[in-house]
Amino acid sequence: MNKPKIVVLGAGYAGMMTTKKLTQNLGIDEAEIVLVNKHNYHYETTWLHEVAAGTINHNRARFMISDVISPNRVRLIYDSVVEVKRDENLVVLENSEISYDYLVISLGFVTNTFGIKGMEENAFFIQDIDSCQLIREHIEYQFAQYKNGEEKDDDSLTILVGGGGFTGIEFVGELAEKVPQLCKKYDIDRSKVRIINVEAAPSIMPGFDKDLVTYAKKSLQERGVEFREGAAIKECKADCFVVGEDNEEIKAGTIVWTGGVTGSPVLSKSGFELTKGKVTVNGDLRAPGEDNIFILGDCAWVMNEAEGRPFPPTAQAAMQHATTCANNIKALLHNEPLTNFVFDDKGTVASLGVTDAMGTVFSGTKLYGKSAATMKKVIDNRSLFLQGGPRLLLKKGKVRPF
Amino acid sequence: MNKPKIVVLGAGYAGMMTTKKLTQNLGIDEAEIVLVNKHNYHYETTWLHEVAAGTINHNRARFMISDVISPNRVRLIYDSVVEVKRDENLVVLENSEISYDYLVISLGFVTNTFGIKGMEENAFFIQDIDSCQLIREHIEYQFAQYKNGEEKDDDSLTILVGGGGFTGIEFVGELAEKVPQLCKKYDIDRSKVRIINVEAAPSIMPGFDKDLVTYAKKSLQERGVEFREGAAIKECKADCFVVGEDNEEIKAGTIVWTGGVTGSPVLSKSGFELTKGKVTVNGDLRAPGEDNIFILGDCAWVMNEAEGRPFPPTAQAAMQHATTCANNIKALLHNEPLTNFVFDDKGTVASLGVTDAMGTVFSGTKLYGKSAATMKKVIDNRSLFLQGGPRLLLKKGKVRPF
Repeated sequence: MNKPKIVVLGAGYAGMMTTKKLTQNLGIDEAEIVLVNKHNYHYETTWLHEVAAGTINHNRARFMISDVISPNRVRLIYDSVVEVKRDENLVVLENSEISYDYLVISLGFVTNTFGIKGMEENAFFIQDIDSCQLIREHIEYQFAQYKNGEEKDDDSLTILVGGGGFTGIEFVGELAEKVPQLCKKYDIDRSKVRIINVEAAPSIMPGFDKDLVTYAKKSLQERGVEFREGAAIKECKADCFVVGEDNEEIKAGTIVWTGGVTGSPVLSKSGFELTKGKVTVNGDLRAPGEDNIFILGDCAWVMNEAEGRPFPPTAQAAMQHATTCANNIKALLHNEPLTNFVFDDKGTVASLGVTDAMGTVFSGTKLYGKSAATMKKVIDNRSLFLQGGPRLLLKKGKVRPF
Repeated sequence: MNKPKIVVLGAGYAGMMTTKKLTQNLGIDEAEIVLVNKHNYHYETTWLHEVAAGTINHNRARFMISDVISPNRVRLIYDSVVEVKRDENLVVLENSEISYDYLVISLGFVTNTFGIKGMEENAFFIQDIDSCQLIREHIEYQFAQYKNGEEKDDDSLTILVGGGGFTGIEFVGELAEKVPQLCKKYDIDRSKVRIINVEAAPSIMPGFDKDLVTYAKKSLQERGVEFREGAAIKECKADCFVVGEDNEEIKAGTIVWTGGVTGSPVLSKSGFELTKGKVTVNGDLRAPGEDNIFILGDCAWVMNEAEGRPFPPTAQAAMQHATTCANNIKALLHNEPLTNFVFDDKGTVASLGVTDAMGTVFSGTKLYGKSAATMKKVIDNRSLFLQGGPRLLLKKGKVRPF
């Protein structure tokens, strides 16, 4: 008997949830399920800014895939994806190849520097566990060097964050928590350390509600974050951003770029037609012209037909993609009609530190401060719960013991 | 009424203990006591290798001077000493000057590179809290960079320790504890990380009992430490030591020099006659030709007349210097005869990690392994007890809660 083989590429929010839903939707004899991922762990992409700032341990932000997906039910392959050969129904991995009947591409994002000169070479990226551990260590190393050095270069303590979008703002919020701790550890005056956020648009968090943005800015400024809005970055050098018409140099010891992401490079390597680095998928989440390939999460643009623009690429959306995708694969196996993705927007909350946040929930209700921070933890915990049930929530959840 | 003024320079083992003994020996109206120190804290020099390896928190290795010496009894000045003007009975500090009737110079050591080319520029030193925090952060930064980097340079994970004396050996012992923890944290294979100790003499720990040295070497080798004995370092470059006749390069990402110390540079600046960077003091611990200046601890050579060579410069000896010095200052104030220093050797134990050590105690009894490790903790705790009594011992002592 030859069971159809479903291969899921990537164990991010979309891939993990698709795999999990498939094991629930399908009988054991109905299909073989394979999950391919670079690491043997899943990490919470939306928590990475906390790992980078050092406010949570990196192990809090990841869990073993095999703790959530049973290796008896799903074949787990830990390897990197090189390319999809669509005409051969084959995925080329770094160390092997795997054929598929149905393919789910949920390989996530890579950082996009938009070709800004020197950014690739000189800036750190909030991209995965490794890159964020490096940012954390780099920042602390600046403090240790400053404290031990004979000649004090105050600029070396400056942390420069390019991009005032969601990740950039959440990151400076965490830095505002972490910097006073580092100052205490190294006996350094807090006033020596600058946290500067640089955004090319006229305001940080473009597209967000104006009241919320005003709130976020004020809260962060009160905790020592500086904003440079309307400041286009022309170049990133080893020790500075060059901004604006007069080529002003903003010096720093740590430079982090959070200004943009794009879909996995596997997409272009596999010959998919791209719009801004992602594939615009059909309503049923299949790639255009493909019967058996779904593309989810940060690799996909899913159009909001009512508004004529794509839904925002969030973790929440990625997990909802997974449900639609798993249902549609079941429909294909059963020769039933496929359904289109409908986004159920539960709102968006940006954290501004441990006890502050802001955002909208329940179709437009604005939240600020502690209640928003609590809601943010509820959202983070919900993602854990959806993936790993109460056991994972208890193990990694953001529950404070006081 | 003009009280005589006693000024103690430096709050290391010798200076702290002298100040404390003076407050016990002398009535409040008998003398004014002043303690000058660069920082507002004392640190345990003999624990610095643990701070550098990251096996203890740096705050464990230091305590506030004012927690042990009452500011109501002793005037505490936190400043750096520039020079002693002996003919004016004056100490020049960075931000002020202070006159004295009696002076105690206990300014400790600085690292001595013996003029080895590039060592000053390229190696880290186990010298004070700041320099050791930098070593700790530098090592971890190498791990974070290695993990995140595309091209893996295994040499960047190598930790090279120049000098196989007491500090060098204790340091590699701590590294042998720390490295497996870092490997786990960054998912790096332990076999990628090398810890290499380089010693110019034919054997590590020259002067130590041969059986003990053999034990130490075996224990450390079993935990992955490599030894290069009889290997004279000709040069230290940014990424290697150059050793031996054939100019072999030993590559590393972290290079620490522990090969030698010398007395504070204030000594030479103040015109004292020096032997290998220290002042050979009289039996009563006064500087030759000086009636009112004592020199203690790592600034002094105290001759063992019976053996015709100086006593070893240890923390134990420094604290005993303090007792003799404080007694002699009291004798001077009372016009009584001074006494000569007699070293009461309670033995020496070198730690080789958390649960291993080796050394001699009670005039020659050799100790190995766990019992030596326990004795080492007793010694460390004794130093805390002598300085700050049971309160300090409870706060910072090496007592394991299990």
